[in-house]
Amino acid sequence: MPHPLRRAALRESLRAADVDALLVTDLTNVRYLTGFTGSNAVLLVHAAGDASSRFGTDGRYREQARTEVPDLARIEDRATGVAVAAAAHDLGVRRLGFESDSVTVDGHTALDAAAEGVSLHRVPGLVQRLRAVKDGGEVDALRLACALADAAFADLVAAGGLRPGRTEREVALDLEIRMRRHGAQGPSFETIVAAGAHSAVPHHRPTDAVLRAGDLVKLDFGALHAGYHSDTTRTVVLGPAADWQRELHALVAAAARAGRDAVRPGAEAVAVDGAAREVCAAAGQAERFLHGLGHGVGLQIHEAPALSPTATGALSAGMAVTVEPGVYLEGRGGVRIEDLLVVRSGRAEVLTGAPRELSEL
Amino acid sequence: MPHPLRRAALRESLRAADVDALLVTDLTNVRYLTGFTGSNAVLLVHAAGDASSRFGTDGRYREQARTEVPDLARIEDRATGVAVAAAAHDLGVRRLGFESDSVTVDGHTALDAAAEGVSLHRVPGLVQRLRAVKDGGEVDALRLACALADAAFADLVAAGGLRPGRTEREVALDLEIRMRRHGAQGPSFETIVAAGAHSAVPHHRPTDAVLRAGDLVKLDFGALHAGYHSDTTRTVVLGPAADWQRELHALVAAAARAGRDAVRPGAEAVAVDGAAREVCAAAGQAERFLHGLGHGVGLQIHEAPALSPTATGALSAGMAVTVEPGVYLEGRGGVRIEDLLVVRSGRAEVLTGAPRELSEL
Repeated sequence: MPHPLRRAALRESLRAADVDALLVTDLTNVRYLTGFTGSNAVLLVHAAGDASSRFGTDGRYREQARTEVPDLARIEDRATGVAVAAAAHDLGVRRLGFESDSVTVDGHTALDAAAEGVSLHRVPGLVQRLRAVKDGGEVDALRLACALADAAFADLVAAGGLRPGRTEREVALDLEIRMRRHGAQGPSFETIVAAGAHSAVPHHRPTDAVLRAGDLVKLDFGALHAGYHSDTTRTVVLGPAADWQRELHALVAAAARAGRDAVRPGAEAVAVDGAAREVCAAAGQAERFLHGLGHGVGLQIHEAPALSPTATGALSAGMAVTVEPGVYLEGRGGVRIEDLLVVRSGRAEVLTGAPRELSEL
Repeated sequence: MPHPLRRAALRESLRAADVDALLVTDLTNVRYLTGFTGSNAVLLVHAAGDASSRFGTDGRYREQARTEVPDLARIEDRATGVAVAAAAHDLGVRRLGFESDSVTVDGHTALDAAAEGVSLHRVPGLVQRLRAVKDGGEVDALRLACALADAAFADLVAAGGLRPGRTEREVALDLEIRMRRHGAQGPSFETIVAAGAHSAVPHHRPTDAVLRAGDLVKLDFGALHAGYHSDTTRTVVLGPAADWQRELHALVAAAARAGRDAVRPGAEAVAVDGAAREVCAAAGQAERFLHGLGHGVGLQIHEAPALSPTATGALSAGMAVTVEPGVYLEGRGGVRIEDLLVVRSGRAEVLTGAPRELSEL
């Protein structure tokens, strides 16, 4: 059970933040620190230890909280955040940190009114920073999520699921069902299947458009396992690739390789993005790479760290990040190639196993 | 296209809120007001009209924004909220409302810094209040979402999908695939299948537990169609029901009927909840009804209005609400029966069609 250890790690940063406790209201952060998987919970992590900490939820989750969070005293109240904040003073808290990056303006007002005799202080991003570096169990969960998605994609291709005449929606459903049958809890986000000119839309949502021979087909998909997400993009051609498709794919593959090669401990996030972006720029396509290079993945599909031209900070061993350059030719088609990597002291470990060369199906 | 009409309705309330414009940052609210379905957007609704309003998103959604939001001038920036707020002054805005129930404390600080020469004012819940009353197209979407879920559930039962020996997880997947095959975009929330003692956990998540003869099996499920959610709960028995199961089901069915009968324009939300709760209380089970009676449903699975002992306000024609009493006998089993209704001037229209009598399968 790593949760007490994670709370202990958080306590270290509470001292640096000069607060007696942190009110954790972000549900993913609560899950990370406790294992609780319900839809309403608030956690007070007291710098003095677990005995002075409190876990709050409501009546719907009474049994689940007993099972999943047996090691913390519980507060049950439908107005959960307010109830936990109100308990802070009696727990000896005078300076209470709150997650100013997730508490709303109105929520803050309510907490402030409830926490009598306690001052509230902005402490954003503390748990997110811990979450960015994965422990062994988390990497195992990510690895398995990737393997489930890989297996489903391989099945889809082997079964001839990517063929002219099917709709984008049919292909997306087919892929999602295959992920579920392999044991995924579900897709880790809404599957993207984008054929022909649609592949030039970075975040296209599947439609009833029919796949046609000669189309580029971009698939961006992931599986959810034990709360952890995977994230893969592959772009294939239905039939023999035209020269421009082959060149576009080769360009993006080169950018992806440069990005993956740049992923190492200590690398600045902006430099990793830049390594891939330069490859596109050298081909005159910098303007058509419409998004950042990648993002952290874990209990959320998008989490710290970001890899982008405006990102700050550097990578550390144990971070899990996507590398996903894309070049989009409006009205014609686009290619994105995305993998999920764990930062290691040598080369990064690539968790996604689907073949990266251009498939002509 | 109802979106310009919805923005016009919002403008009426802007005047009452004494602001020149509202910065809409809640993504569901943006979708409601524009039709935009991407994952990043901010809308400035100017009281002076659409010509002075702005739609913001980032480069990933350039084409999608052109297609889905052709009728508003666009701002493209990765720091979307800040960029739109920064444009407010030049649009003649001096008093800018913001959604204080969704903007975070840190987000507010960033907006305040960006909106030079403009004062920010808390304006929570305006769009949510509009959304609570559905127009004809929205009711059609909800009706179809319910029909898809109904059809899938009927298929599941007809195919013998609810039988001893299957796991909760298998049943949940089976039901979700059937919803997708009927045309749902996906489940509208994580399907609950809870067998035996698990049925006493209101929000149980499916496990590898095996369904056994004699079990109560509670299924809470919904389909997503065109962004609109359905929400149904049925509780069945595998084989002939024991007396206590039959009595429990009859009690909850009576509470559900009382709740549905109380749904009418002008009814106080707390009184609708009370109508069902009294039925449970008269049977000595008030303590085992662990949650509110219901909630609004639309572009979100949980939205205004709430029906609960602490709810405020009254129902209006066109609102869509669930009625879902449940009684949970810890360690033995529980029953919940849930329907989705549209408030009408006469009797409420029930959108969910799955049979409500106790099925012994």
